[in-house]
Amino acid sequence: MSSQLKTHPHRRYNILTGEWVLVSPHRTKRPWQGKTETSTKKEAIPYDPECYLCPTNTRINGEVNPDYKNTYVFKNDFGALLEDTPLFEYKEGLLHAEGEKGISKVICFSPNHSLTIPDMEIADLVQVVETWQNEFTELGNTEDINYVQIFENKGAIMGCSNPHPHGQVWAQHSIPTEVEKKTNAQKNYLEKKGSGLLQDYIEQELKEDVRVISQNESFVTLIPFWAVWPYEAMIVPKRKMANILGLTDKEKLDFAEQLKTLTQKYDALFDTSFPYSSGIHQAPTDGAYYKEWHWHMSFYPPLLRSATVKKFMVGYEMFAMAQRDITAESAAEKLKSL
Amino acid sequence: MSSQLKTHPHRRYNILTGEWVLVSPHRTKRPWQGKTETSTKKEAIPYDPECYLCPTNTRINGEVNPDYKNTYVFKNDFGALLEDTPLFEYKEGLLHAEGEKGISKVICFSPNHSLTIPDMEIADLVQVVETWQNEFTELGNTEDINYVQIFENKGAIMGCSNPHPHGQVWAQHSIPTEVEKKTNAQKNYLEKKGSGLLQDYIEQELKEDVRVISQNESFVTLIPFWAVWPYEAMIVPKRKMANILGLTDKEKLDFAEQLKTLTQKYDALFDTSFPYSSGIHQAPTDGAYYKEWHWHMSFYPPLLRSATVKKFMVGYEMFAMAQRDITAESAAEKLKSL
Ligand SMILES: O=P(O)(O)O[C@H]1O[C@H](CO)[C@@H](O)[C@H](O)[C@H]1O
Ligand SMILES: O=P(O)(O)O[C@H]1O[C@H](CO)[C@@H](O)[C@H](O)[C@H]1O
Repeated sequence: MSSQLKTHPHRRYNILTGEWVLVSPHRTKRPWQGKTETSTKKEAIPYDPECYLCPTNTRINGEVNPDYKNTYVFKNDFGALLEDTPLFEYKEGLLHAEGEKGISKVICFSPNHSLTIPDMEIADLVQVVETWQNEFTELGNTEDINYVQIFENKGAIMGCSNPHPHGQVWAQHSIPTEVEKKTNAQKNYLEKKGSGLLQDYIEQELKEDVRVISQNESFVTLIPFWAVWPYEAMIVPKRKMANILGLTDKEKLDFAEQLKTLTQKYDALFDTSFPYSSGIHQAPTDGAYYKEWHWHMSFYPPLLRSATVKKFMVGYEMFAMAQRDITAESAAEKLKSL
Repeated sequence: MSSQLKTHPHRRYNILTGEWVLVSPHRTKRPWQGKTETSTKKEAIPYDPECYLCPTNTRINGEVNPDYKNTYVFKNDFGALLEDTPLFEYKEGLLHAEGEKGISKVICFSPNHSLTIPDMEIADLVQVVETWQNEFTELGNTEDINYVQIFENKGAIMGCSNPHPHGQVWAQHSIPTEVEKKTNAQKNYLEKKGSGLLQDYIEQELKEDVRVISQNESFVTLIPFWAVWPYEAMIVPKRKMANILGLTDKEKLDFAEQLKTLTQKYDALFDTSFPYSSGIHQAPTDGAYYKEWHWHMSFYPPLLRSATVKKFMVGYEMFAMAQRDITAESAAEKLKSL
């Protein structure tokens, strides 16, 4: 690793999106006098009569949650995407819009209100992975649905309004911006090199071994070279697969294990229930054959220095490009050591 | 305006970046039980002995601020970009980085600690505009500096750590991602149509008159059709100019007037000192002739429903695409009426 990357401001290239991030390694000494967040405590009680995600409770639309034992999936009562949307086209001079048909669902990871992913048993996390697979299959096979986004917002700071362990799936007609970028990059690389972009990338990372946080037989967890968020991380299957349906039983177990390892490290880092948004990027479900796609799960956590000081992606970041203060290598070193 | 845009989820195309935003007009009824912010009060005192931006106070590095009367500019004591950065190139397999030379400066808008842009006199805002021009000239003419980003983070919620009225300028060697997108879009349009993209756009907006908030002889302030943030707005000169140096005296006055009008409306909207990040996008300063560029100033404010409920750009937005609940048209109607 060039020592210049440790000392001088520089930009790094994201091979998946084609975008750059500004890295300012010298800036960690900056004093912080701005806004601080409240540190999140874990929930104390396994059942909360006020929680609309707990088993047997009634949701705002009058529906009663079943007494579920593992995961539980239902249609979002206030979904941003709706099934009965016409696929209209609106074009008027320089104004261009299209009807966006879709489905928004909520996935409860566990009936236990007080758990989060790092607290769950690996066997129970395998059930979460299988629920994601089921949703991917069902939504991916729905007419007019061409992409399925699985994600989790964890912590109030990430806009999550209920601490009950849950994630979401938003599936839609169009291919979202971020996915399109990653499709193009992987496709171009495969065409040019004849090999998978992420396969070659993780091979290089495993050899260099400075950004790898942990691994097992089937998965590697690392801070990507081009990470934007301070402790951004990526869980990547070692084998190229277009989507999560390709997982063998052993791989499901290994995935669940890395999920638990990474999130446990996160909680330990600042001794808090670590907030993040996570998401699985995989091939579109429009029926085309995406042989370039190598699915992966990314974590974008906002905390920078402690449980109460976050990184703000504001002015410069919104108008120019992403910016970070600590290097990917030092973030990886910290997480690895935990 | 098609009535379908008022009722159905749809995506809208951003002609400047080539990206889409998901609009969910039906979703405004969603109850909010999540995180709330503290509403910002204006500062009561015109001089704060503890503020490192007030005149005559000593900054953290020991420098003493002059007893300035209008604006005051100094180099950021903890700049993310530094002047003595080597322009090295790092390429190692799939890892790609480049030294990023630059300068980060702070611009105090006024010696008065208790003011914000909407409270300032138009004559004093003209001085701010002239300070931006001076910085753009000086930094733009600096060797190895090819782009100058002027911006403001206002409010603690936008990562601003000091309420004293101030903005920043970060100037750098490379052309940032967002600017590159806008350069390409404007260039392609000019080549294809022979006219300016934003010129044709504002002409259409002025004719339709559903997203225009205010205007004067030289400027129009509107909510762009593809706005991402709930009350995102844009101040655009009616005349095509590559950068702010082209402004006549009359245009400077008109710009200052629209700046004041928009930010006053913002403060009135939720009866709070309205937070936002704003930024001026203009042509790069690398010496090339950017005849396609039409500079403009954009405002990205986070508040959604009240002084304490903001829009979270999290999971889905980070992994898929931007999403908003209220339409650009209804946001414009509200701001216009104030
Ligand atoms: O430079 P400041 O005001 O200390 O810092 C603020 O603005 C910068 C530029 O948008 C961001 O990088 C920081 O995250 C934010 O806290
Ligand atoms: O759907 P929720 O959890 O109510 O809402 C949260 O996640 C959504 C998807 O990332 C965002 O659009 C919302 O801004 C956020 O508050």
